[in-house]
Amino acid sequence: METAALISGLKQGDVKSLARCISLVENSRGAYEELLFSLKHHPEIPVAGITGPPGAGKSSLVNALTHSFVASGKKVAIIAVDPTSPFNYGSLLGDRLRMSELYLTPGVFIRSMASRGSLGGLAPKIHETIDLIKNAGYDLIIIETVGVGQSEVEIAGIADTTVVVMVPEAGDEVQTMKSGVMEIADIFVVNKADREGADAFGGHLKRLSAQKHSAQWMQPVLLTEAHRNVGAGALAEAISAHHKLNLSKEKQLDLMAEKTAHLVREALARRVQVQHIRERLNAQISAADFNLYRFTREMLADS
Amino acid sequence: METAALISGLKQGDVKSLARCISLVENSRGAYEELLFSLKHHPEIPVAGITGPPGAGKSSLVNALTHSFVASGKKVAIIAVDPTSPFNYGSLLGDRLRMSELYLTPGVFIRSMASRGSLGGLAPKIHETIDLIKNAGYDLIIIETVGVGQSEVEIAGIADTTVVVMVPEAGDEVQTMKSGVMEIADIFVVNKADREGADAFGGHLKRLSAQKHSAQWMQPVLLTEAHRNVGAGALAEAISAHHKLNLSKEKQLDLMAEKTAHLVREALARRVQVQHIRERLNAQISAADFNLYRFTREMLADS
Repeated sequence: METAALISGLKQGDVKSLARCISLVENSRGAYEELLFSLKHHPEIPVAGITGPPGAGKSSLVNALTHSFVASGKKVAIIAVDPTSPFNYGSLLGDRLRMSELYLTPGVFIRSMASRGSLGGLAPKIHETIDLIKNAGYDLIIIETVGVGQSEVEIAGIADTTVVVMVPEAGDEVQTMKSGVMEIADIFVVNKADREGADAFGGHLKRLSAQKHSAQWMQPVLLTEAHRNVGAGALAEAISAHHKLNLSKEKQLDLMAEKTAHLVREALARRVQVQHIRERLNAQISAADFNLYRFTREMLADS
Repeated sequence: METAALISGLKQGDVKSLARCISLVENSRGAYEELLFSLKHHPEIPVAGITGPPGAGKSSLVNALTHSFVASGKKVAIIAVDPTSPFNYGSLLGDRLRMSELYLTPGVFIRSMASRGSLGGLAPKIHETIDLIKNAGYDLIIIETVGVGQSEVEIAGIADTTVVVMVPEAGDEVQTMKSGVMEIADIFVVNKADREGADAFGGHLKRLSAQKHSAQWMQPVLLTEAHRNVGAGALAEAISAHHKLNLSKEKQLDLMAEKTAHLVREALARRVQVQHIRERLNAQISAADFNLYRFTREMLADS
């Protein structure tokens, strides 16, 4: 398919064209730059990140939230970020199976992306993937992490709204929880709220939230039972309300400058050629006063 | 203290000077570049990475391994990498307490480093920290991860020898284990080998290892009971044997070229100024044909 037809298909919301575009961009193949240069900026489409520790019910919540949006006639895209850890996270990824019915729901697009180690980040081309999906006419993008490793912090740099999901039992642990959770959460969800201690834990989070709210936003604390669809509507409303704060020109400039900086850093990193460095190293390493940090400064001047 | 005295203290193995040097370099403060330019290259000092899933007994193994080296008159440094995840890893970090007796053992240096999200990697200045420790005269450096997130893969890029620790129960999961584990492991350890299934699991790993060994090295599979110090001596020998393979000139060039590339990428990333990008963005964003990816290409040309 030629690029013009692919772009046209994307902008008409054709799912196959969207999937093809994402693959081309992920692999930096074909006319992927032309694709990216054709994209419009869509700040009005919210990107919600759902994070929280394993077992909090993130996938069930994504499921319930998606159904809530779809029921109101909206198109929803889900990006599921899988860890690159070589150890067995089968039990975590098994949760994803609960999403499987969504694969058959009209108006729902699901894409799984692998996180990676080399340069950090949720996934190498997640910004580009989000923009492709926005240009295909989806009304909401949900990013789900597996809740291990660094992805929880990074999701806050990518999503408009970060939803932190916990279970009532986490109340015992919240004292030792690193302060980072308070920093990244725009919305708190206490899921499995039919369990003992949910109200007490919710009250505790509300007091923490009240201590540090800004003039514009106080983190709401929502109780949900995602497996019974209880609370999904309220969460959908909270995401929409929070997203509106991101639409000011100042906030948009902040977000887009961060995103550009990220993309520039990635492009710079790709320029560094290990083979070239190796050749230069081979010529210098035998010198008696060889120092790797001085050599690094030389290579930096080359880049 | 002036820089010359600090460098002199470092090279004499003074622990306070070493700690001070690491802090200066971690924070890019003072004469940290002069410090780095004074370092010698020490490929003969092995760097062993210990990784594996939570609960495998990594800290106990580090403990046993350290005692084994110390008993033979060697100085050992341990770098413990803590996750930046905001969720509660108290139970994982609690394991570290088992190392606490080592804080009082002569000839043992322990440094805890936080991993970070922004640019990936085990910790921002781990390469520099390793070189500072080597110049302070330690005979072995052990890096321990907590076994969650991306650090397991990245440790293989930093350590001379990567030791993957598992428990017999992991045998049931090894079928679903991502192939990455086989890629990164130079040595397999089945810890808690007094438990049922240890021999069977060890045998299975040996068969996997035999299928993919190189001409130079076949991943050994060692059974240990770290809490009783069983098997630590054999592990120490395996680490020394594997490390010798890294001392060929070709292998050294590979390792140092990768390390330089990493350091250059980090330095390039630090050059990207979000505030400058924001100003340029502010001047362009109102254009009808504004495109973020075209703008990114302009900013890249600036960098």
